[in-house]
Amino acid sequence: MGEFDLIARYFTRPARLAVAGVGDDCALWQPQPGMQLAVSTDMLVEGRHFLSTVAPQRLGHKSLAVNLSDLSACGARPLAFTLALSLPRLDEAWLQGFSHGLFSLADAHGCELIGGDTTQGPLNICITVFGEVPPGDALLRSGAQTGDDIYISGSVGDARLALEVFRGNVKLEAGLFEAARLRMEQPVPRVALGQALRGIANACIDISDGLIGDLGHVLKASGVGAVVTTGWVADSAAISPALQCLPMSRRLDMALAGGDDYELLFTAAPDQAQAVQEAANDCDVPVTCIGRISTGQGLQVLDIHGVPVSRRFVSFDHFSP
Amino acid sequence: MGEFDLIARYFTRPARLAVAGVGDDCALWQPQPGMQLAVSTDMLVEGRHFLSTVAPQRLGHKSLAVNLSDLSACGARPLAFTLALSLPRLDEAWLQGFSHGLFSLADAHGCELIGGDTTQGPLNICITVFGEVPPGDALLRSGAQTGDDIYISGSVGDARLALEVFRGNVKLEAGLFEAARLRMEQPVPRVALGQALRGIANACIDISDGLIGDLGHVLKASGVGAVVTTGWVADSAAISPALQCLPMSRRLDMALAGGDDYELLFTAAPDQAQAVQEAANDCDVPVTCIGRISTGQGLQVLDIHGVPVSRRFVSFDHFSP
Repeated sequence: MGEFDLIARYFTRPARLAVAGVGDDCALWQPQPGMQLAVSTDMLVEGRHFLSTVAPQRLGHKSLAVNLSDLSACGARPLAFTLALSLPRLDEAWLQGFSHGLFSLADAHGCELIGGDTTQGPLNICITVFGEVPPGDALLRSGAQTGDDIYISGSVGDARLALEVFRGNVKLEAGLFEAARLRMEQPVPRVALGQALRGIANACIDISDGLIGDLGHVLKASGVGAVVTTGWVADSAAISPALQCLPMSRRLDMALAGGDDYELLFTAAPDQAQAVQEAANDCDVPVTCIGRISTGQGLQVLDIHGVPVSRRFVSFDHFSP
Repeated sequence: MGEFDLIARYFTRPARLAVAGVGDDCALWQPQPGMQLAVSTDMLVEGRHFLSTVAPQRLGHKSLAVNLSDLSACGARPLAFTLALSLPRLDEAWLQGFSHGLFSLADAHGCELIGGDTTQGPLNICITVFGEVPPGDALLRSGAQTGDDIYISGSVGDARLALEVFRGNVKLEAGLFEAARLRMEQPVPRVALGQALRGIANACIDISDGLIGDLGHVLKASGVGAVVTTGWVADSAAISPALQCLPMSRRLDMALAGGDDYELLFTAAPDQAQAVQEAANDCDVPVTCIGRISTGQGLQVLDIHGVPVSRRFVSFDHFSP
């Protein structure tokens, strides 16, 4: 099997959105008149974004999920994606699993593969995703207002928890480990919630590098500060049963700086609290209020007694030691 | 320097096209009403698409050039691109050279960097490029008509020639080697010619895997055959002085199956011959007629005496031995 057979067998499907050109030098497509395009790209490298032990089906899912998560953070509706793939060898079982996981998620969101590239080399997966959003409706990092409540969707810290189990730093009962591992290997992008928050949230970002670090991007872009109270880390829907097995200090580290969560962090005015809850209910995703936007530039993290947490929460940075 | 400093220092520039979102989760952009979008993605891996000896500035150029070449083959006007980069280490001299080469070419074509991703890992460069084309005007592989003349732009075989010098299989005088090496390391995408051929050419592809193989894609997509006469390999603008140093049989191999040329191969009706030449003159790119589209499915390659060349020309395939 050669490069072109590989593409034909595992990555060719009937075109819907693309008007022509799938398999040509370019894919051609006619954007919906009056809509804005949202574009994002993510590159996944073995050992950095996934372990070699991950099932190919889960990896196919995750490769698209992290991109859909970026669209969700902007409130965009997924339309299409391109896939570039560097493979060490031609492994049909791997390709079958990977493409199955990839297309299962793509189909669930009506997101069409419109082009790609395959080459031989160290395993590397690069997806560029396209979505659409009505002009002016996109959620940005820069819209947070003083007085806004800060929310997160779903639960945070589980992906990091699973990683620490793999690293041998934490022990966990098998069932709890499998649940955490699923969050790490097969994250669920909050596609419906992102769109439901248009007109409700003032700012939004997806939590990929770690909650505190990603909140920092919102604060910087918006020119505001924030107070995060950590009562919710003690007891809320945002902390999974697996993470609740850990002592509070380690739980804090994983929830606030774990990374790889692919939950949405967003801010909304207090008078939108009911609208936020209704959007969350409609999308069947819990949301938890974790703090409030303040004036100034600082970020304060308070423990359950209201005492500032002195520890630094270091987010993921690919080029920091 | 961390990941975000790296992006700020080497890959952040004033936005023009993007309406918002550069540095946000997504870039947002308002497509020109009534235009079709053309999208293509290419992934470059060390040892497959470039040698470790390439100057970073040339590599930055080439990474975008191969993508612009895909847009050119569709007759699309470049608009924007995303860049995903996996780097083994943070090497400022490399980043400076790479970004300089990249942006020099991008600026020359008004093509704007609107988003990206950086990570640590084996060197890998993935660019996704966006262009626009009026509906129905895109050049496709599938439009070749029986009786069409087959043309190539510029010259072919030099990139492969340089590679064979690097491999020690060919010796070349230093000045000629440098010229061939420049073609390999810093190919010039035929952006203006691609757009000039709209309404003139019936089918078009860029020559990346090798002339015969890429012509084969056109024939298959168009359901036609072709006769390629190789007189032009003996003596024409399509063969560089460097390649003319080689005996005819090796010249044929490199011109017809060398790959990495990033020239356009296109077909046009005989009554468009003058229009083709005028487009070529306007764009200051020589074009050479190399054969004709025939009925049926076969591809015949004839030598300068009109005798079929029996040799198989094997194009580049990342997963063939």
